[in-house]
Amino acid sequence: MRLTKFTDNALRVLIYAAVNSDRMTNISEIAEKCAIPRNHLTKVVHAMATRGLLETVRGKGGGIRLVRPASEITVASVVRTMEDDLKIIECFEPRCPILEVCTLKNILGEARHAFLATLEKYTIADLVDNRAQLKIAGWN
Amino acid sequence: MRLTKFTDNALRVLIYAAVNSDRMTNISEIAEKCAIPRNHLTKVVHAMATRGLLETVRGKGGGIRLVRPASEITVASVVRTMEDDLKIIECFEPRCPILEVCTLKNILGEARHAFLATLEKYTIADLVDNRAQLKIAGWN
Repeated sequence: MRLTKFTDNALRVLIYAAVNSDRMTNISEIAEKCAIPRNHLTKVVHAMATRGLLETVRGKGGGIRLVRPASEITVASVVRTMEDDLKIIECFEPRCPILEVCTLKNILGEARHAFLATLEKYTIADLVDNRAQLKIAGWN
Repeated sequence: MRLTKFTDNALRVLIYAAVNSDRMTNISEIAEKCAIPRNHLTKVVHAMATRGLLETVRGKGGGIRLVRPASEITVASVVRTMEDDLKIIECFEPRCPILEVCTLKNILGEARHAFLATLEKYTIADLVDNRAQLKIAGWN
């Protein structure tokens, strides 16, 4: 029951940008500090910018920053935005013979709802409440 | 946020065995009816037997059946038994630099708890309440 590496890394990027919200950051710095391979990170950041989670500013003094305050970005919204789909199991590949009458998908849907409802309660700001500790750990 | 194919197929096997709990079933039949590749299914069934979810009886008249009544097998117990681990993200590979002070893992742990608490409310018996419909769909 894993989130994709894409979502995992998007969360790290947001936490890093929120810890350092007083300035711009950039791909090289995030790659090093968050231990994310640069190639993969470039794709993640591009997707995040396209999907409205990050702003990328070109030119001198440019870089990457949050589009809106960390307190307005729920963890659930990041998961919803970054996961390609939110299926818990794959009913269609191969197409399950009992698809039409199976009640498992409803139960898993209810469980997913409970999962996301929990993440709806928290924002990226909650994840950097301990900003000082995160900076001491090297995220400065 | 996908369960592994292993867990997905274990759930299908249990539902199939519960629909047909008045008799033994076997690998060939489940492979065909549940559209699960036989090689993969053999591994799933072996793991399920080893982990106490299925009983395999050798010899003439042998086959596969549930170890205990479907009403005593919660969906959550199947997920817990079949998933290799229940991590939502991978904090250790590569080891995350902020591991010690990161609060995301606590929030994801709370969300996982909500997910599994929902699945704790349902048993395999609930999934075959509509046994007649499942049999009409071909699971007979």
